[in-house]
Amino acid sequence: MKAQIISIGDELLIGKTLNTNAAFIGNLLTENQINVTKISVVGDDEQSIKDAFEYSSKNFDVAIVTGGLGPTHDDITMKCIKEFFETELIENEKILENIKSIFARRGREVTDINKEQALVPKCSEPIPNIMGTAPGSWIEKDGWIFISMPGVPSEMEMMFSKYVLPKLIERRGEVADITKSKTFSTTGIPESTLFEKLGDLTTLLNGGKVAFLPNQFGVKVRVNATAATNEEADNKITEIEQRIRTIVGRYIYTCKEETLEEVVARLLTDRGLTIATAESCTGGALANRLTNISGSSIFFNRGVVTYSNGAKVELLRVDEDMIDKHGAVSIEVARQMAEGIRSTSGTDIGIATTGIMGPKSDFSDKPVGLVYIGICDENMVTAKEFRFGENRLLNKDRTSQAALEMLRRCILGIEYDQ
Amino acid sequence: MKAQIISIGDELLIGKTLNTNAAFIGNLLTENQINVTKISVVGDDEQSIKDAFEYSSKNFDVAIVTGGLGPTHDDITMKCIKEFFETELIENEKILENIKSIFARRGREVTDINKEQALVPKCSEPIPNIMGTAPGSWIEKDGWIFISMPGVPSEMEMMFSKYVLPKLIERRGEVADITKSKTFSTTGIPESTLFEKLGDLTTLLNGGKVAFLPNQFGVKVRVNATAATNEEADNKITEIEQRIRTIVGRYIYTCKEETLEEVVARLLTDRGLTIATAESCTGGALANRLTNISGSSIFFNRGVVTYSNGAKVELLRVDEDMIDKHGAVSIEVARQMAEGIRSTSGTDIGIATTGIMGPKSDFSDKPVGLVYIGICDENMVTAKEFRFGENRLLNKDRTSQAALEMLRRCILGIEYDQ
Repeated sequence: MKAQIISIGDELLIGKTLNTNAAFIGNLLTENQINVTKISVVGDDEQSIKDAFEYSSKNFDVAIVTGGLGPTHDDITMKCIKEFFETELIENEKILENIKSIFARRGREVTDINKEQALVPKCSEPIPNIMGTAPGSWIEKDGWIFISMPGVPSEMEMMFSKYVLPKLIERRGEVADITKSKTFSTTGIPESTLFEKLGDLTTLLNGGKVAFLPNQFGVKVRVNATAATNEEADNKITEIEQRIRTIVGRYIYTCKEETLEEVVARLLTDRGLTIATAESCTGGALANRLTNISGSSIFFNRGVVTYSNGAKVELLRVDEDMIDKHGAVSIEVARQMAEGIRSTSGTDIGIATTGIMGPKSDFSDKPVGLVYIGICDENMVTAKEFRFGENRLLNKDRTSQAALEMLRRCILGIEYDQ
Repeated sequence: MKAQIISIGDELLIGKTLNTNAAFIGNLLTENQINVTKISVVGDDEQSIKDAFEYSSKNFDVAIVTGGLGPTHDDITMKCIKEFFETELIENEKILENIKSIFARRGREVTDINKEQALVPKCSEPIPNIMGTAPGSWIEKDGWIFISMPGVPSEMEMMFSKYVLPKLIERRGEVADITKSKTFSTTGIPESTLFEKLGDLTTLLNGGKVAFLPNQFGVKVRVNATAATNEEADNKITEIEQRIRTIVGRYIYTCKEETLEEVVARLLTDRGLTIATAESCTGGALANRLTNISGSSIFFNRGVVTYSNGAKVELLRVDEDMIDKHGAVSIEVARQMAEGIRSTSGTDIGIATTGIMGPKSDFSDKPVGLVYIGICDENMVTAKEFRFGENRLLNKDRTSQAALEMLRRCILGIEYDQ
């Protein structure tokens, strides 16, 4: 089954929007043994869109189209579908109900141009959109499968995962060679160190393949193995996993599609532990990541963002003399902040960040990228020093990631080294 | 001059790498009056690459190809060029010198596979790579211009800006028409309402074009105007801008490439105002966005994330009876939180969020997506009700965006309506 992704939108051609939709779809199709052999991006132009449909119908088994389904004049995908498939548009009762209920929930009235979004191609099976107003379409013609979805990422992602992908997998049928892959998310170890520690990859992988994907949150190690059966492929992956875990297991926080905050949230919830955060340099990023988790009110009691020294003294009882002596960015202040937030909030764990995020330094002689993270539970209080880069936003990401990793290690009783 | 971008690489098809190269090229070409009419992504596969070359030579004036020029087994672009153009590869002295000097600088020896990168198509003009070892190629055939560059972003960007773009502009010649564009970032008004308020677009635009780009932070309205001279095009844009501002000016927070927090940070800094945040439902997202701005310590004094009711009472002096009576998610509590954070921190402005972010409801009968935002300065305290959707992360984005917009309006004295 050869699939093509067709992304529609001028904003993609002129480079104002990154094509994250194609990446999202490409990733999920590949993981499910459906080959993406081409991605095409065309503008909001009738001829270009129809040409792309025509080429796809002749060269690929599946076309997955995103974009151009909104309510305004430059959204012309539905018109192109109507004309390309020589079909008509008919009002769909269920879709109209969905549009009305979305507007009702937001306390707004349904306008005529919104009602038009309930018009679907007669030759199609409409795909529901539970996140928005524009429905998708599934059309089949002479063995070619054509799928149209909105370009708004959240709507497309939900629609693709819930309706499109399962149906495509069903239609794909059994595949001859099975390729399985597993991704290990590591943090706190640089790509080159990881690479060196893993040693000879030929031995390690035994016919499998590996890719290293680094970003500011850590390095993901993706392993692939191909075999004749599901079981064989799984066994190969398990063998490779055992070898990798023996060498660098402590740095791996998950092998699922989940974030470090999801892992930490589960650990806290399972153990019935509560936490409070005291942030200076991360400015709320750490609390934000913890509260991204649904149900976080169970473990997250409160957070403070003590940007000014006054706030550190008033809210966290940090010793003013200590700040004068060592500076707000110091191991001593990180430790006192962690102790302060734990004792004032009465939680099991307190965690604190202080550092210089850049791009400019503060007025001390300390370098941009210098960070201290403090952590405190009923048995201990400790703080670690980190040296990050010069980019402010990347430094906030790196610091909140390191803080979450210190939390994970603290809960699991794994020593923290860098 | 119709240009196509062809990006080569399996990693793009399987969604592990975002196609930032195409966005970079598309943006610069558009700014220089060269139309990008298609972007195609193909894998490291000979037939797919040659098919893409063939199609491009027949349908476009220029093909800009990136990727597949590295030294390893899956880099096959040069082989495809050789065969597609029926040419031979010859060693280029200057390129070889460049490779040798790069290796010398890194203290490494030049290997045979690196020397192979000095082989360039006989029919081409080689393009120097001052950041790496793989040269680019400029080939012309029957009026079609073919450009090949490496896929490493830093190398491609330098090569494109320094050599390729100036030469393309020269070849483009004088353009009969100059196109200028301007983007207005709006928030607090849905796409369909914006569209309706703007009324008849033909009159409004007077020959110009408009595109609406919605996401959870608002709707961007991009306007294009074409004219014979730079000045005329600028004048057209100014006219359109005046009409748009008359109708929906209050919703526009910028027409530059900047975020709402950057706008708010500038307003606060210019006026010497200080702020403190009290967040319940946004869980630190608002403080995080404000502290993303370099220099935010000038206006941002502190923030609290009062997830528990206890924290609201202790840190913000919210009335416990009020919480019992109206619930933590209420207009009364939002107002008290804003007053509480302003008075405890001694800042000019206090802002507060409380709501149900979902996907599950709290234990009250209030719906997911219900949000109250309170704001308080020396003259007034007020709070507004919002109804957002069911997606937790999008709701946090929408709430922090609405809070920043209330701040912007408060500072500028623009009334807040929804």
